[in-house]
Amino acid sequence: MARTGRRPGNQDTREAILEAARKAFAERGYDGASIRAIATSAGVDPALVHHYFGSKDQLFLATVHAPINPEEILPKVFEPGIEGIGERIVRTFLTVWDSPAGSTAAALIRSAVQHDWSARMLREFLVSQILRRAQRELDIDPAEAPTRASLVATQMAGLAMIRYIVKIEPMASMPAEDVIRHIGPTIQRYLEGPLD
Amino acid sequence: MARTGRRPGNQDTREAILEAARKAFAERGYDGASIRAIATSAGVDPALVHHYFGSKDQLFLATVHAPINPEEILPKVFEPGIEGIGERIVRTFLTVWDSPAGSTAAALIRSAVQHDWSARMLREFLVSQILRRAQRELDIDPAEAPTRASLVATQMAGLAMIRYIVKIEPMASMPAEDVIRHIGPTIQRYLEGPLD
Repeated sequence: MARTGRRPGNQDTREAILEAARKAFAERGYDGASIRAIATSAGVDPALVHHYFGSKDQLFLATVHAPINPEEILPKVFEPGIEGIGERIVRTFLTVWDSPAGSTAAALIRSAVQHDWSARMLREFLVSQILRRAQRELDIDPAEAPTRASLVATQMAGLAMIRYIVKIEPMASMPAEDVIRHIGPTIQRYLEGPLD
Repeated sequence: MARTGRRPGNQDTREAILEAARKAFAERGYDGASIRAIATSAGVDPALVHHYFGSKDQLFLATVHAPINPEEILPKVFEPGIEGIGERIVRTFLTVWDSPAGSTAAALIRSAVQHDWSARMLREFLVSQILRRAQRELDIDPAEAPTRASLVATQMAGLAMIRYIVKIEPMASMPAEDVIRHIGPTIQRYLEGPLD
């Protein structure tokens, strides 16, 4: 490709970067993939990757077609601290899934269930974009954080599946406040209850 | 098809019945589908359906390729009553998923996430084979049973997804006893805790 064709917004260049990024993240994971290597593989200058996508986080989110920007949503969830965190997590989750972003989220889960590649991207998304942030902001014992996070993941993934994907009643049409009241305490216990 | 070809074990007849049953269960649900109508649609005598498949339950289980026979497994789970039910449910669930039946169960979930038809069959399976039995044996207030059951479904579906399908660590390789200790109390609370 000629350098002159690579003005901001050039779809081919953008696509080439996304393609290289998808491959890199899937093969090497979020931490192992570097902007430099992605740029080389796409045949562009690393500065152009930053120009189009901003940070590595943002590039990753574009790669998985993330329906939300965790940077915008999560601070409000985590900042108030551990008290009431279960309720805030479930409430935020329902807000995202009940919004237009919900159908993209459903597509991500459908894909992760079907393809190992997507499953790996979902794992990388959860770990790099959500769990690390939670650990940083919630002051959870780092030795326990992975166990607590994966317990939370079981409850939230199942909520998505039963309420939004397989749609089992009465969960599928339960008022959000009821879901929060029932499931919030589970998340709270997984995050601060004793583990043994 | 000639009558003479329909001896027990005849694959074509068996397949024709299964095909008719799949269609009937998907279109009319478990309750709405009758053995008589399935037999008519398959062009066989209803007695032959019973001969090949036994009860309507058994025909349904064959239709969805159910990896377990709930009639064999569930009495041990429910009979001792509500005390310790959360732990027994999680333990039994892990036993099934860690056995060769686990891969069939994973295929069922993958399919339910992908196709509305399969999702409906999964709903029918849960309701007709598991929830009703639980309600009968556990003495749960019938007015609350659907809510409790669908809460349990969110936690168990997510456990299957995170541990066996998307395989997020440390959940994917957590010792069964740890999973039971962490998640058992959630199920217990969903089944006997206050709902409001």
